[in-house]
Amino acid sequence: MINQEVRQKLIHIVGPGNFDDSKAGRLVYSYDATPQFQSMPDAVIAPKNSEEISKIVKLCNEYKIPIVPRGSGTNLCAGTCPTEGGIVLLFKHLNRILEIDEENLTITVQPGVITLEITNAAEAKGLFYPPDPGSMKISTIGGNINENAGGLRGLKYGVTRDYVIALEIVLPNGDIIRTGGKLAKDVAGYDLTRLFVGSEGTLGIITEATLKLIPMPETKKTILALYQDLEAAARTVSKIIANKIIPTTLEFLDQPTLEAVEAFAQIGLPTDAKAILLIEQDGPLDVVTKDIDSIIKICKSENAVSVEAAKSEEEAEALRTARRAALSALARLKPTTILEDATVPRSEIARMVKAINEIAEKYKLRICTFGHAGDGNLHPTCLTDSRDHEEIERVEKAFEEIFAKAIELGGTITGEHGVGVMKAPYLEMKLGHAGVAAMKAIKTSLDPNNIMNPGKIFAKDSRKRVVVTK
Amino acid sequence: MINQEVRQKLIHIVGPGNFDDSKAGRLVYSYDATPQFQSMPDAVIAPKNSEEISKIVKLCNEYKIPIVPRGSGTNLCAGTCPTEGGIVLLFKHLNRILEIDEENLTITVQPGVITLEITNAAEAKGLFYPPDPGSMKISTIGGNINENAGGLRGLKYGVTRDYVIALEIVLPNGDIIRTGGKLAKDVAGYDLTRLFVGSEGTLGIITEATLKLIPMPETKKTILALYQDLEAAARTVSKIIANKIIPTTLEFLDQPTLEAVEAFAQIGLPTDAKAILLIEQDGPLDVVTKDIDSIIKICKSENAVSVEAAKSEEEAEALRTARRAALSALARLKPTTILEDATVPRSEIARMVKAINEIAEKYKLRICTFGHAGDGNLHPTCLTDSRDHEEIERVEKAFEEIFAKAIELGGTITGEHGVGVMKAPYLEMKLGHAGVAAMKAIKTSLDPNNIMNPGKIFAKDSRKRVVVTK
Repeated sequence: MINQEVRQKLIHIVGPGNFDDSKAGRLVYSYDATPQFQSMPDAVIAPKNSEEISKIVKLCNEYKIPIVPRGSGTNLCAGTCPTEGGIVLLFKHLNRILEIDEENLTITVQPGVITLEITNAAEAKGLFYPPDPGSMKISTIGGNINENAGGLRGLKYGVTRDYVIALEIVLPNGDIIRTGGKLAKDVAGYDLTRLFVGSEGTLGIITEATLKLIPMPETKKTILALYQDLEAAARTVSKIIANKIIPTTLEFLDQPTLEAVEAFAQIGLPTDAKAILLIEQDGPLDVVTKDIDSIIKICKSENAVSVEAAKSEEEAEALRTARRAALSALARLKPTTILEDATVPRSEIARMVKAINEIAEKYKLRICTFGHAGDGNLHPTCLTDSRDHEEIERVEKAFEEIFAKAIELGGTITGEHGVGVMKAPYLEMKLGHAGVAAMKAIKTSLDPNNIMNPGKIFAKDSRKRVVVTK
Repeated sequence: MINQEVRQKLIHIVGPGNFDDSKAGRLVYSYDATPQFQSMPDAVIAPKNSEEISKIVKLCNEYKIPIVPRGSGTNLCAGTCPTEGGIVLLFKHLNRILEIDEENLTITVQPGVITLEITNAAEAKGLFYPPDPGSMKISTIGGNINENAGGLRGLKYGVTRDYVIALEIVLPNGDIIRTGGKLAKDVAGYDLTRLFVGSEGTLGIITEATLKLIPMPETKKTILALYQDLEAAARTVSKIIANKIIPTTLEFLDQPTLEAVEAFAQIGLPTDAKAILLIEQDGPLDVVTKDIDSIIKICKSENAVSVEAAKSEEEAEALRTARRAALSALARLKPTTILEDATVPRSEIARMVKAINEIAEKYKLRICTFGHAGDGNLHPTCLTDSRDHEEIERVEKAFEEIFAKAIELGGTITGEHGVGVMKAPYLEMKLGHAGVAAMKAIKTSLDPNNIMNPGKIFAKDSRKRVVVTK
């Protein structure tokens, strides 16, 4: 709860137009893209710069008021749901690209910039920002950094973490620090830059970031391979990598996902295939041609029933867009869509897909699976209805088994979505008690009053949880 | 000091053959490759596995005995000098490559494996481990990880951090944890893997690591460009990158270094040039040919007096070996060689080299500069004599100014060598008081008794410092 005195101080810091504690204003920020989580914040605040953020944080630290930093709220782990109330902090005034440095190949941005704007700004200079999370058209870079967002190009180019080289951070005590620099090499003390990437807003507030860019690849080719056998598709993935080809994108869709995507996008995808692989390679033309030829041979050797190259960039873009639409397409089918991101070493993809299907059958659930097969990052997606409490119980059990299987296969409970509230109960499965204890010790050392996005990453009961349906 | 009871317990853990507190045995580990630092440990211990290490750590934590984990001691920041006494912990029994996984492109190793053995083992499978610190023929991977070692290929391929994907760690409380996995994507909690990379043994003991491998590049070409003008060489560096070419290696040597290297290696280097660039590109043959042609044109447009391609792999290897020999070559010239690694954004290389030369002149010192120009990581190297206390004072002042200049230009006090004891007094220049305080808080949270490599990273007076000369 925010008392009158604190309320006045907050308004004094940001101005009355940037503070909202009306019921309507708070309701809008009571949930994010994650189903089944809702909780009202006490206020919503939109600071204009790091100095204002520092003042807000100092005040909240004094009065032990939770702060939930929030970009576009596209995360899927309830990472920006204000489960313990407090203040939702918005970055709508911190939405500028500050600089593109063509000599050092960097871009410096404020956290509220939309990911796609960064991609486009880089492209206009012949440069490339590779991370491309599914929500990149609306997600903010601040959110991407806090969740260490992945995407379709992770196999070849890595994830958000691999491109963040400097940060400005407001620490929970209000101190403003700068980490890293426009430097490929910097070992001056602990790697705070990468500690903050993926820390889900629990260690401080990122107020500026410098990202590495790379030269734009010369060209790109896209192929689609169809299979009547899930495991043959999975074997193809392993075989491509074992042949020392690292494609940009190596996406997998199972039949139910394929059907949903085709019904949604209507681009003529073959809905009778048991699985498809969407494969892209980029780079110099000769290399791309050679790699794509080799990949086609490998697909055929694994009994793909059809392997076709996109005939034009438009056709390729339609395929990519269809893949990106998978979540939206599935979400149309049932009231509640629970998308997970259990991740395994890529050699275990076939075993993992098989296990997911067995678990779905065991619990009589509809689970569709798609995802980034090349990096072992699968998205088993359960189509359910959160009003059906009996079914939701089965869903929870099924996902617990899926996470256990992923860990058994050398994987993790989350490849790119983050822990948030959603996955907090499973963290110890992956890290063990000692691993979680080490992380908690770090959290407490920087945020002793637990004001920064409390209740995230580390399991505890939510203050309030309202099950909502669409 | 280790009392009799603890001594007996340590011997009981590792066996009498793996514990040495004789004066001769301790003397060997009283210093590392860093000049001017020496301090006697109380004992030297060589455990056989993580369980023994866990027992040692628990015991030392109970009795507050410092532990200094040490590979080959090739670091240049006194990172393994036991400045506060205690136990030097060796990895000579933990020196095995445990697995090469060709499906997931990983290699799993114990910390005592020599870096070059990893490179060679990967190569035997057609795979590539890019980090190549100067000392790779004798350095251990454990040391590389703890210092986040760089090397000559950092510009294109990044540093050790970019290849470490999983760790087994013994924490200061004796807990054994595992971080990461054979996964390109993993966001289950804080990125402990990368927090430990570069933590200089101050947060725990790394007992196993899984490293990412990549496919071996098809081919490699090497060229040497000579300049009569330092700044023209620096401009060439910027121009190559601005032309969107990222070479594997882009090394710079100034004339004094060149002279020393030629006197040492005698491979016919032109000692009358004011600066040389050693440039390599790897990848598919067509791409390499095209890039090298473009690079040659850029060198010529910046008035290189000569640009020559190595005629054979032997000639290329001779050039690389000569470059790698720079430190040894310079070390022959005077009793004490102080090699630093001030690092700047690559656009600032010309300004930095100029500043180094002006500072050398101001303090009447002989400073030779070479290094990884492509990533702004320079090695200004002072040839001096530590017995000459008056000169050493000037050296300290000169390096302080060099670090201040690097920071002013957006750089850092250490690009790849680490902070250790050597650079601890300068850390706050780079990070500010608040940045250092945040790091100290993390250190204290994991190691409240400060047993893990105490006195490193964070400045404090050494217990004993004996100035030694060669």
